[in-house]
Amino acid sequence: MRDGALVVDDVETPPLQAGQIRARVKACGICGSDLHTLHHADRMVEMSRSSARGEPIAPVFMDPNSDVVMGHEFSAEVLEVGPNVGNAAVGDLVVSMPIVFDMSGVHPIGYSNLYPGGYAEEVVLADVLSLKVPNGLTAEHAALTEPMAVGLHAVNKARVTQRDAAVVIGCGPVGLAVIAALAAAGCETIVAADYSTRRRALAAALGATEVVDPREEPPVDAWRRVDGRRQLVVFEAVGIPGMLAEAITAAPRNARICVVGVCMEPDRIDPMIAIGKELSVQFVLGYDPAEFGETLRRIAEGELDVAPLITGHVGLDGVAGAFEALADPDAHAKILVVP
Amino acid sequence: MRDGALVVDDVETPPLQAGQIRARVKACGICGSDLHTLHHADRMVEMSRSSARGEPIAPVFMDPNSDVVMGHEFSAEVLEVGPNVGNAAVGDLVVSMPIVFDMSGVHPIGYSNLYPGGYAEEVVLADVLSLKVPNGLTAEHAALTEPMAVGLHAVNKARVTQRDAAVVIGCGPVGLAVIAALAAAGCETIVAADYSTRRRALAAALGATEVVDPREEPPVDAWRRVDGRRQLVVFEAVGIPGMLAEAITAAPRNARICVVGVCMEPDRIDPMIAIGKELSVQFVLGYDPAEFGETLRRIAEGELDVAPLITGHVGLDGVAGAFEALADPDAHAKILVVP
Repeated sequence: MRDGALVVDDVETPPLQAGQIRARVKACGICGSDLHTLHHADRMVEMSRSSARGEPIAPVFMDPNSDVVMGHEFSAEVLEVGPNVGNAAVGDLVVSMPIVFDMSGVHPIGYSNLYPGGYAEEVVLADVLSLKVPNGLTAEHAALTEPMAVGLHAVNKARVTQRDAAVVIGCGPVGLAVIAALAAAGCETIVAADYSTRRRALAAALGATEVVDPREEPPVDAWRRVDGRRQLVVFEAVGIPGMLAEAITAAPRNARICVVGVCMEPDRIDPMIAIGKELSVQFVLGYDPAEFGETLRRIAEGELDVAPLITGHVGLDGVAGAFEALADPDAHAKILVVP
Repeated sequence: MRDGALVVDDVETPPLQAGQIRARVKACGICGSDLHTLHHADRMVEMSRSSARGEPIAPVFMDPNSDVVMGHEFSAEVLEVGPNVGNAAVGDLVVSMPIVFDMSGVHPIGYSNLYPGGYAEEVVLADVLSLKVPNGLTAEHAALTEPMAVGLHAVNKARVTQRDAAVVIGCGPVGLAVIAALAAAGCETIVAADYSTRRRALAAALGATEVVDPREEPPVDAWRRVDGRRQLVVFEAVGIPGMLAEAITAAPRNARICVVGVCMEPDRIDPMIAIGKELSVQFVLGYDPAEFGETLRRIAEGELDVAPLITGHVGLDGVAGAFEALADPDAHAKILVVP
């Protein structure tokens, strides 16, 4: 990302420091956040700084006016290990949470000027965060660990149990990851809503028990039709202004709303409606190392089939075109970059 | 309330129906919601309808274009019991949740065209909801049960434990009720913030461990100074647009925000900031019967001293003037109407 556009160019791989490994990227998913970032990088940096205010360990943010190699959903093969590495070995296929440390601080891989992300041939990773891919899982499927972990984390943060029902608004990769995690949690009523026929089919494949086109039936009405009794958790997985207000208006009394779609613009809500129904709104982001590892295990052991999510492949020179293709929700779910 | 103004006039007490009691109002607190309602009645009714959509038992809302006798924080002496009354007896001093039932539905006392509220000489109450005031507690102190129960409910909904710290933004009657309930819950760090010197003194009297003028020190900074380690719960008890956004910006990572101030206008938030810190926002309203009874018990047994909250008394002809006096936060906390 250079001056707000995607270009292909040669950049140096940073020299290995203690506790780091150098690895060849085998596959890297394109994330909706990267599409947002290309158009709203300044605002994303400003918000990240603001949300980290007062935190003891804050990441070193990128300067969007300098080069950034994005990509944070990768699997990679270890090429070289630095000093004090005790986990990874040369030749290992690994995945890693997209964070790397050095003496200057904590760097988010894919949103850093110093460390290239997965839309590159090589990445530098933190040895302690790298997980060897088990069970002969393919590099392409392993690369889905990161986005699927987002869904597990959201379901955990929303404290969903088998006694709850769920409505998932938006069946892009984030909504689909939530649906898969809800199914794994034993949730028996999972209503998924999306305008796209293809995404609704993916939602059903990943575990939604009811899929609706919101133009035909509002998703909370669909929940009333098929269940209407359990405590409802509404997952907002679209991430554009107005969706939270819609969820607040539609939610039944005492519902929990879990905001997992990342809305980068200011948004408007009606507090009176949320107060009258005593709603709660849990905002979520990312995952923790245990959730990341558990997601890899689920994929590797066949509990979570990510194959239907992969709808395209591109090389490095195809990334810019893939960003454009992803604007059409009926055409794609996850496009993998294979450098 | 007639045509958006407060007037004193004679109205009929509704005839007693089964399960109802007629009682003489001894004292009734003036609530900030009544001040809001006088100026925003249409919006309040519209929001209440919206929030009750799809609920199996929805209250019968007032028409603000017809007469409404407000007042929902009352104690009263029983004058007459209707058919099928097995709880209250003539002569009892009682308090009641401000709800009454009849064959036409559920009516919110104080926001009903049919049932007058406590700014009247007489009210009609539901026998099953009336609680006899114990222990020789005065009618004036008993009338504080309702607003103090709001604080207990907020603290319960926010699931505050002794391991949490709290910041209370706004020390009007709602904020003060929250502070008292936090102290009763064993919360050891309670930072209270208000512009008013008098309200800060009341906050300290009710259990705040640190009081700040937000012009001098932001309340979350005060929490960092005196504690900074525990999980933080921020109570928003002001209820005007912009306060929730301020709480979201100020809150530390993983904080819970409890919205107990009733903001009747649309409000703007920055979801990105809430997402980056994984905040949760619990909107709360009212209390349940157990919380109402527990609050009466605490006041009657001397665990909760409400005397400092009572800063004025008026008769029925003084209600309109009291509404104006309450606009100055340094002059008053709770004004009691004694018909």
